[in-house]
Amino acid sequence: MLLNTYEPWKFAFSAETDFDNIEKDSYGIIGVPFDSTTSYHSGSRLGPIVVREASYGFENYNINFKTSLDCIFYDFGDVNVVPGNCEATCNIVEDTVNELFDLGIKPITIGGEHSASIGVIKALSEKYEKLTVVHLDAHRDLAFDFIGEKYSHATVMRRAHEFGVDLVQIGIRSSSIEEEDFVKSTYNIQTFKNKDVHRHMDAVEYYLTTVDTPIYLSIDMDVLDPAIAPSVGNPTPGGLFISEIEDLIRSLSFKNVVGMDVVETATDRLGENTAVTAAKIIYDFLSLI
Amino acid sequence: MLLNTYEPWKFAFSAETDFDNIEKDSYGIIGVPFDSTTSYHSGSRLGPIVVREASYGFENYNINFKTSLDCIFYDFGDVNVVPGNCEATCNIVEDTVNELFDLGIKPITIGGEHSASIGVIKALSEKYEKLTVVHLDAHRDLAFDFIGEKYSHATVMRRAHEFGVDLVQIGIRSSSIEEEDFVKSTYNIQTFKNKDVHRHMDAVEYYLTTVDTPIYLSIDMDVLDPAIAPSVGNPTPGGLFISEIEDLIRSLSFKNVVGMDVVETATDRLGENTAVTAAKIIYDFLSLI
Amino acid sequence: MLLNTYEPWKFAFSAETDFDNIEKDSYGIIGVPFDSTTSYHSGSRLGPIVVREASYGFENYNINFKTSLDCIFYDFGDVNVVPGNCEATCNIVEDTVNELFDLGIKPITIGGEHSASIGVIKALSEKYEKLTVVHLDAHRDLAFDFIGEKYSHATVMRRAHEFGVDLVQIGIRSSSIEEEDFVKSTYNIQTFKNKDVHRHMDAVEYYLTTVDTPIYLSIDMDVLDPAIAPSVGNPTPGGLFISEIEDLIRSLSFKNVVGMDVVETATDRLGENTAVTAAKIIYDFLSLI
Amino acid sequence: MLLNTYEPWKFAFSAETDFDNIEKDSYGIIGVPFDSTTSYHSGSRLGPIVVREASYGFENYNINFKTSLDCIFYDFGDVNVVPGNCEATCNIVEDTVNELFDLGIKPITIGGEHSASIGVIKALSEKYEKLTVVHLDAHRDLAFDFIGEKYSHATVMRRAHEFGVDLVQIGIRSSSIEEEDFVKSTYNIQTFKNKDVHRHMDAVEYYLTTVDTPIYLSIDMDVLDPAIAPSVGNPTPGGLFISEIEDLIRSLSFKNVVGMDVVETATDRLGENTAVTAAKIIYDFLSLI
Amino acid sequence: MLLNTYEPWKFAFSAETDFDNIEKDSYGIIGVPFDSTTSYHSGSRLGPIVVREASYGFENYNINFKTSLDCIFYDFGDVNVVPGNCEATCNIVEDTVNELFDLGIKPITIGGEHSASIGVIKALSEKYEKLTVVHLDAHRDLAFDFIGEKYSHATVMRRAHEFGVDLVQIGIRSSSIEEEDFVKSTYNIQTFKNKDVHRHMDAVEYYLTTVDTPIYLSIDMDVLDPAIAPSVGNPTPGGLFISEIEDLIRSLSFKNVVGMDVVETATDRLGENTAVTAAKIIYDFLSLI
Amino acid sequence: MLLNTYEPWKFAFSAETDFDNIEKDSYGIIGVPFDSTTSYHSGSRLGPIVVREASYGFENYNINFKTSLDCIFYDFGDVNVVPGNCEATCNIVEDTVNELFDLGIKPITIGGEHSASIGVIKALSEKYEKLTVVHLDAHRDLAFDFIGEKYSHATVMRRAHEFGVDLVQIGIRSSSIEEEDFVKSTYNIQTFKNKDVHRHMDAVEYYLTTVDTPIYLSIDMDVLDPAIAPSVGNPTPGGLFISEIEDLIRSLSFKNVVGMDVVETATDRLGENTAVTAAKIIYDFLSLI
Ligand SMILES: [Mn+2]
Ligand SMILES: [Mn+2]
Ligand SMILES: [Mn+2]
Ligand SMILES: [Mn+2]
Ligand SMILES: [Mn+2]
Ligand SMILES: [Mn+2]
Ligand SMILES: [Mn+2]
Ligand SMILES: [Mn+2]
Ligand SMILES: [Mn+2]
Ligand SMILES: [Mn+2]
Ligand SMILES: [Mn+2]
Ligand SMILES: [Mn+2]
Repeated sequence: MLLNTYEPWKFAFSAETDFDNIEKDSYGIIGVPFDSTTSYHSGSRLGPIVVREASYGFENYNINFKTSLDCIFYDFGDVNVVPGNCEATCNIVEDTVNELFDLGIKPITIGGEHSASIGVIKALSEKYEKLTVVHLDAHRDLAFDFIGEKYSHATVMRRAHEFGVDLVQIGIRSSSIEEEDFVKSTYNIQTFKNKDVHRHMDAVEYYLTTVDTPIYLSIDMDVLDPAIAPSVGNPTPGGLFISEIEDLIRSLSFKNVVGMDVVETATDRLGENTAVTAAKIIYDFLSLI
Repeated sequence: MLLNTYEPWKFAFSAETDFDNIEKDSYGIIGVPFDSTTSYHSGSRLGPIVVREASYGFENYNINFKTSLDCIFYDFGDVNVVPGNCEATCNIVEDTVNELFDLGIKPITIGGEHSASIGVIKALSEKYEKLTVVHLDAHRDLAFDFIGEKYSHATVMRRAHEFGVDLVQIGIRSSSIEEEDFVKSTYNIQTFKNKDVHRHMDAVEYYLTTVDTPIYLSIDMDVLDPAIAPSVGNPTPGGLFISEIEDLIRSLSFKNVVGMDVVETATDRLGENTAVTAAKIIYDFLSLI
Repeated sequence: MLLNTYEPWKFAFSAETDFDNIEKDSYGIIGVPFDSTTSYHSGSRLGPIVVREASYGFENYNINFKTSLDCIFYDFGDVNVVPGNCEATCNIVEDTVNELFDLGIKPITIGGEHSASIGVIKALSEKYEKLTVVHLDAHRDLAFDFIGEKYSHATVMRRAHEFGVDLVQIGIRSSSIEEEDFVKSTYNIQTFKNKDVHRHMDAVEYYLTTVDTPIYLSIDMDVLDPAIAPSVGNPTPGGLFISEIEDLIRSLSFKNVVGMDVVETATDRLGENTAVTAAKIIYDFLSLI
Repeated sequence: MLLNTYEPWKFAFSAETDFDNIEKDSYGIIGVPFDSTTSYHSGSRLGPIVVREASYGFENYNINFKTSLDCIFYDFGDVNVVPGNCEATCNIVEDTVNELFDLGIKPITIGGEHSASIGVIKALSEKYEKLTVVHLDAHRDLAFDFIGEKYSHATVMRRAHEFGVDLVQIGIRSSSIEEEDFVKSTYNIQTFKNKDVHRHMDAVEYYLTTVDTPIYLSIDMDVLDPAIAPSVGNPTPGGLFISEIEDLIRSLSFKNVVGMDVVETATDRLGENTAVTAAKIIYDFLSLI
Repeated sequence: MLLNTYEPWKFAFSAETDFDNIEKDSYGIIGVPFDSTTSYHSGSRLGPIVVREASYGFENYNINFKTSLDCIFYDFGDVNVVPGNCEATCNIVEDTVNELFDLGIKPITIGGEHSASIGVIKALSEKYEKLTVVHLDAHRDLAFDFIGEKYSHATVMRRAHEFGVDLVQIGIRSSSIEEEDFVKSTYNIQTFKNKDVHRHMDAVEYYLTTVDTPIYLSIDMDVLDPAIAPSVGNPTPGGLFISEIEDLIRSLSFKNVVGMDVVETATDRLGENTAVTAAKIIYDFLSLI
Repeated sequence: MLLNTYEPWKFAFSAETDFDNIEKDSYGIIGVPFDSTTSYHSGSRLGPIVVREASYGFENYNINFKTSLDCIFYDFGDVNVVPGNCEATCNIVEDTVNELFDLGIKPITIGGEHSASIGVIKALSEKYEKLTVVHLDAHRDLAFDFIGEKYSHATVMRRAHEFGVDLVQIGIRSSSIEEEDFVKSTYNIQTFKNKDVHRHMDAVEYYLTTVDTPIYLSIDMDVLDPAIAPSVGNPTPGGLFISEIEDLIRSLSFKNVVGMDVVETATDRLGENTAVTAAKIIYDFLSLI
């Protein structure tokens, strides 16, 4: 860059990417502009742009947590997706996360639809002996397939479960009878519905303290109430408030979080509140670690 | 329909309409694309389309109430309205509801402005000896006339009161001094203001249990907070949350609800949250009955 | 339907669908709400809804052509698509068109992305000994594959060409060097670029009169100037005017058009001009035949 | 007003309204925020606001006509309309125009739907022995009634014709068979369709020079192409260009124009191009007189 | 105005402005359509229009506070701003407020960006021996300069502090480390963060009762949660609810409030909820005094 | 970047920026996200983002000009602007262009408001003995000052003229009387109004061939018709068509163009047509050189 210029396409506060001097054990952002399997409204492919743009609205100092965003992290740009081929796109994401891992970088993925998480979780589940996915979503995403498709935003956590991870699902308020039956048939899926969070946040936070494996955090923006995050692929009334997300992020900041994603932001309007909120969640996470 | 097609203009999960085999004592949806008397912003004529479109975002299983939407109901399309003539439109709605009644069908009306309820309540008030209208709204809609007009979104409940129904008004936070005086001058209008609902939901629910007449449920989407339902004819800050609506719907599901409407959704954007929320309210109601 | 109701999303002027009395040799509308392979902006899955809604803005009498829309045609609703699987969706479309053919119905398809045409052209190319596809588009859509995908909005006319059809491409103003080379390597692809249409409409119309095979008409809305049709998957400056489209439709009305589609309308706003224009094109076509 | 303030919604360049010193034989703006009889999309009630706001984008000097907007004119605000009652609203408009006439003011009306013109033309047709209405519109608006309603945006020019005026309809491209029959059955309705204007502007301008009565100019914004004026109650592809409107306005500036209106601007977005264009038309008219 | 017209550009319920008979000790509205120093998204220059337009959605009777809006107040229109020169604009605002003061009018300013308050507070701080600014905002706005600029939306309260006022900052949830240090270094800035308001409203209200100087109330709309007020220059998740604003306004209504502003409404859409809420805050304030 | 990633906001087809190996005599893009002096609607600060995003809709091969975009060019990101201080921002732009010049790079600037050109033209006018600015705009931008401000979008070409450049103004259709007088008082400002371009493109093109100095090309997007480019700071009906822009760009491609800018794109919506058209203009320019 020149003396007076900056790269507006990078998440605010991110560091230059000098491959010879990358800080080990830091975080790296990738975008996955993919929305091909979306079942209701498409558009989350623009998530990586609008979320990055919204990141420029925050201060270095995070008054809420009384801390500064002073960790080193990188923005590696967007993955080359294959429109219409979810499996191929998942494989590219997986390869990219492996590359990042080899550089000592933990992935922060901006979606794009929730299928962006499949490749990430696949890669990480092979790196760590045991992995717990903390999954914030209005939906379980536990379908075995969706109209025959195994790679889909609706099957993410079923695939993750097949990779051997434990699941903690938080904010759930929509599910099929098949998904409910599947949850009952397994032992390692813990559920906190939206009203559980509203009424018993202490229980949720306590449960998270008991997780002793590395954690992958996956946040579908539809976990938030549509009042706050209206532009998502499947808006679902009755979601979490931002203060509840803040509490969960803070709880997790004391754990070994080896990667995270914020997905399903689906708007073409810069400055829209879903994008602002997605950016804030990443900003809060980076402020706390 | 052909083997592989469906009718996207019908509410999700609705049954085919085979007039020779209509299930008695079931529900039937009609749309009323009318907004001629709107006093602030028009546009609710598009409500029937956007609400139906939004109905495709829900699962058959309703995890919130642990029940499935397995009742038989029908979508009979939209009423032919007369732009600029509210009384004529009300008469058409009334005739249609009478037709439905003769088929053994209880009406679910998607507005359109609130005047859509006048014809429905008129028809039903003549079918049932006594009728209680449970009216969720930011406004009382009790004006005798509106700038001289007796058929108006602002006079709906005054007309209903003249038809002899009892009124329970819930969520009220805007009213004229004339409306307040009228309420005081009557004996059969019960009021729960927005803050009454926030603070004393138990009292509201208890009151509803005491209603022993058939109930007609009329929901003006502006009863919800504009954060959740911004696209209404008269946005009014300080409304109900979706969980409060859920509680009220559940309370009413134990009663004899002989018809309902969800009105004043006024947006031209498919997937907008007012439409999603209106669809969810109908979906919840159908899941519970 | 009841006495006073109608089905609000069916294309205006369409007939009831009574399977026992379907008029042979008439037209039938299907929607294909699919946009999974879109490479720039998604959203055309909403095309079938917004185009039907816009059809209610026209008169039965078409003053432009001094004729009335008095042909019998049907609206069969939308095809069940498979989000994320273009090939599966194409197969469903193909099956549906075969069903229609067996009923004596020529298909009018509302997209959705341009891949909706693949199944239609496949079915029709097998019904007719020789078929010419008149293809109005800013793009050639002649890629062999798109990032490895053979079923894609970008490969539609390459697949069609493989099915053995002749191609007349009108309005072209974007193309890859590979597509140009392919066109040169074949004998049966005729090209009229956007400026050819502006300057030499007579030549285009004359060419169309020489086509003596059955014709399939495929209209990508991006063939129009984005001033008129801004909401498409790949907006491309410099397109056709509506009067040019009218001239082309009229020329084709004297030919044996065995099916048509209007695709790539990508907006979530009812009444948006891309939708209005797409509806008008179908309306004009139906008025003329 | 204070030293440093101005009234932000008054039409730009309008004079203060000092009732004791009103300039005789000048023009006065009124708004009619009414859209109750709209048959397709409502929203033109916001026209008076958005058109006035857009008037602040122009220079005092009009380079196109090499003249300055130096005539005195007034902005009298908006008429009190009766939502849902077109006849009552027309009567109020008529009364207001009579008031203006008594002050020596010729009306410039900003709609609102086209029914705003009924009251104006009624009033003026009684003031002048003979009146010619030059009517720019995509539609004839000559229905005897619209679903039984005699006061409607669709019947404006039929009512005007009953008041005894001559009609010149320019830009027509949509009409019913009944309207066509009515035109044929009369002697004093001259028609120039959209393509007549495109091809034979000289003939249109010549015809206007032959009108020797006072002229009332009524401009439905849908006469323009939807590319330029997308936000109207009935968008109709294939309309006039702005240069054609300029030519018509200039031709009329040599005649005795005793009033004008610009109606059917239907958007809630400040700065939208329909509003800008409507403001420009009034600005051009005022620059030329 | 004529018999049947009103001025739509004035705040609803405002009185005519007859300079010879202005009611002393009343309130007067001015708009400041200025947004030149905005750091994230511009657009608040349209605030004065959209907030006034939204004021027409309220009843004269305020049921929430059981009072009527019966005080006399005036709408003096908008200040002439200097795009790109904040200091010059502040000086014009200051002059205007001085003019108002001489007329016995307390200012109610509709922004525009928050810098609109600088001139107002400067003028008032010179009129009153001691002044307390109650500042509702997500941000402290206490920067000494913003990229070198001393007149900026980000420095408003630093300038106010230099004018000698006491500050009560309510709703704060974003701040720089320099601002935090400055607050610590002073004695007369009291802070209630967003969560303080949620949890300890009693303490906030009690504190306000202890203020014994005249009060100036400055409300940055971003103090509200973006769910309610999404269209602001710097949307910041986690803000106040409307009931909290109501409580604060009521508390202040018992004090000597010598002026107020509502700033940072940044939308071009009439009827948008940020505008509605801004209008309601002014409406509530005027109802209570 | 990693193996599978790219930088999503860099202009499509731009080269990596390796400072040690920058190709001499090539072009470099900078964005200027500044809109503080805008007089009508703000928002052009988002131009650099939305124009870059739109650049991903084009093919490497440019079928219109039968050439490929194979020149090497760079995207250097955005300049650090000073909100509210136009002069300071101009100075930063000037410094940046000087830096680029020292690297052998000719600037392509994406605005932001038109004042972005001031610094560029200042820098270049000092590098070249004689410079001609070819200025495409609806407005002359020749005001000596704008409400006292010398650095403003409305004064750009007056400042340029002071720097000693010759001016060719193309597409003009709005101007003040002072600007007209100024043009008459000088010898080196050539004007082609919008209708001159429509009717006498040959004359315009011929004139451009006679320019024998280096040329700087400055394109205010409002030169285009608002049908094509609706989202600009000052929408002005009656502008150029895209084919006219194409012709002008091609004419200039035979000249020595030492820099260009495309300014005043003012939208927050990704994929909006103003942004697409601005990107296409840069794309065409880069294809032709
Ligand atoms: Mn979800
Ligand atoms: Mn999910
Ligand atoms: Mn209401
Ligand atoms: Mn109501
Ligand atoms: Mn195309
Ligand atoms: Mn195509
Ligand atoms: Mn019309
Ligand atoms: Mn009309
Ligand atoms: Mn703030
Ligand atoms: Mn502030
Ligand atoms: Mn300009
Ligand atoms: Mn300019």
